[in-house]
Amino acid sequence: MSEFDFIRRYFAPLAKRQAGAFSLSDDAAVVRIPKGHELVVTKDAIVEGVHFLGDEDPALIAQKLLRVNLSDLAAMGAEPYAYALAVMLPPRADEAFVKAFTRGLAKDQKKFGITLLGGDTVAAPTHLCFSLTAFGKVKKGEALRRNGAKVGDIIYVSGTAGDSALGLKLLRWGLPCRDAKARKFLEKRYYRPEPRIALGLKLRKLAHAAVDISDGLVADLSHICECSRVGARIYQDKIPVSQAFNAVVGKKPEKRQDALTGGDDYELLFTVASADTRKITALSAALGLPLTEIGRIEKGAGVRVIGENGAPIALERMGFVHFAA
Amino acid sequence: MSEFDFIRRYFAPLAKRQAGAFSLSDDAAVVRIPKGHELVVTKDAIVEGVHFLGDEDPALIAQKLLRVNLSDLAAMGAEPYAYALAVMLPPRADEAFVKAFTRGLAKDQKKFGITLLGGDTVAAPTHLCFSLTAFGKVKKGEALRRNGAKVGDIIYVSGTAGDSALGLKLLRWGLPCRDAKARKFLEKRYYRPEPRIALGLKLRKLAHAAVDISDGLVADLSHICECSRVGARIYQDKIPVSQAFNAVVGKKPEKRQDALTGGDDYELLFTVASADTRKITALSAALGLPLTEIGRIEKGAGVRVIGENGAPIALERMGFVHFAA
Repeated sequence: MSEFDFIRRYFAPLAKRQAGAFSLSDDAAVVRIPKGHELVVTKDAIVEGVHFLGDEDPALIAQKLLRVNLSDLAAMGAEPYAYALAVMLPPRADEAFVKAFTRGLAKDQKKFGITLLGGDTVAAPTHLCFSLTAFGKVKKGEALRRNGAKVGDIIYVSGTAGDSALGLKLLRWGLPCRDAKARKFLEKRYYRPEPRIALGLKLRKLAHAAVDISDGLVADLSHICECSRVGARIYQDKIPVSQAFNAVVGKKPEKRQDALTGGDDYELLFTVASADTRKITALSAALGLPLTEIGRIEKGAGVRVIGENGAPIALERMGFVHFAA
Repeated sequence: MSEFDFIRRYFAPLAKRQAGAFSLSDDAAVVRIPKGHELVVTKDAIVEGVHFLGDEDPALIAQKLLRVNLSDLAAMGAEPYAYALAVMLPPRADEAFVKAFTRGLAKDQKKFGITLLGGDTVAAPTHLCFSLTAFGKVKKGEALRRNGAKVGDIIYVSGTAGDSALGLKLLRWGLPCRDAKARKFLEKRYYRPEPRIALGLKLRKLAHAAVDISDGLVADLSHICECSRVGARIYQDKIPVSQAFNAVVGKKPEKRQDALTGGDDYELLFTVASADTRKITALSAALGLPLTEIGRIEKGAGVRVIGENGAPIALERMGFVHFAA
């Protein structure tokens, strides 16, 4: 199949409900933004052998790509609107690959209420690479930022931390795990993170600062601290982890560091005035999503992690960094 | 250097004048569109070994990437506004690479009046890959489309065709060329195409249909024909070619097919009502850019190319296609 066949048969149907995509047959797409709104734009790339293994169901690769971008929109409090997609395909990525990949996108388009806007389909020598640009809408001036955390704010995290990093260890390094149910849960958390869109929308007039956890809880909290010119103190024993996480790593604190630094969680980490904690409790109940207090914003700089014995702990690393020495 | 060092030192300065980029320190960027305007969005990806060789000056790779996207904006009649960028870097792409690459971007940002909005910097196993999403502005409903060509329209092309394809042959396949000046010109046309922004803006209320020549003149004209449900007839001897093109390929018609099917020209191909040809002559003079009549839109479907002997000629291929059999 040529690129034009791929576009006509597999990508154009994903753009059907988007008038400004012109059936993917023009040089570019056109986006109209409702009055009083701004467009939130994020762009992530994923590469075979770095962000995914390459031999998984292509639908999973597609869904993860879309979801990590939607998670950025969630962290900005934006409502998902559309996305543009570049796919770089080596020779082995045949029609069956593209069919499965676009099936994954179609499923998630429905789930998240978005459509394809445009993009590019090109050949690559050896590795699969994808880049996605996601667009969201937000009322003027209401986007959630990283730079608003204030001394005394309570720090919250949604869901559970560390599942995805553990899922990846099970997948890639054959970490032993006799608990088949736990394994399945953790692998799913790695492949199909849940962008916290509904939470992000509700946090718009409530949170002082927000970020999604992609690099790792401590690393992403340090981004909030840097942008807000504050410090933070969090408690290892308050970090919410899943039953599956507990089942696999047990109780030893040093084995539990993935919850602090593992990354790829795509939960929201946010800070709220201490006067607003009751609103967060109510929001958690309304969304059916755990929102857990893990520490406080304080003066200074950087993140201090207090261990289970009450003393600060030293972390080997804060989170995932590309090109780290 | 880590990804964060790359971003701080080399990419953040490119986003300095763009308030909505938040110094590249947030989860996403925010775009405001002036009242009564729409945002035009295009996304192209380029891959080492497919779209560029890999050993050229990284500044040239960056400029080509930016310019092929700006050319899509030109074809829509949009004014360049900003861009988002994903860079996927194998281990050999070190700080010197990123420094040169961003130097190329900085130069072209000035030339085209745009700024970086956001993006992603990630590791890749072996090949350089880049994806760029370019944003332009256009007044509501004024975007140039491919689907408005009408029977009787005159078909025009800007600049000269075939230079870039010939430049690539000189670079990649060592096509012999004793004329150093011609070689330099053709290679430059390959690496640094001129997106026809000013022309696109002027064509907004004048052209019925427009496309930029990326796949090849005949292939891209066939896109206009398909979208507009018309046919086209063009004349090989009317296709404008450069002195350098003539110097390298000589007079034999079969050697001149690169002007018809070579691709990568990034000139604009457009159709205009026959009553408006004088306006095009005036526009050509005002812009100092050749705008050459090459044929007519007619009933039917597909592109007929009339050779120098007056008979239709058969082309080996219409243009470049990824994954062509």
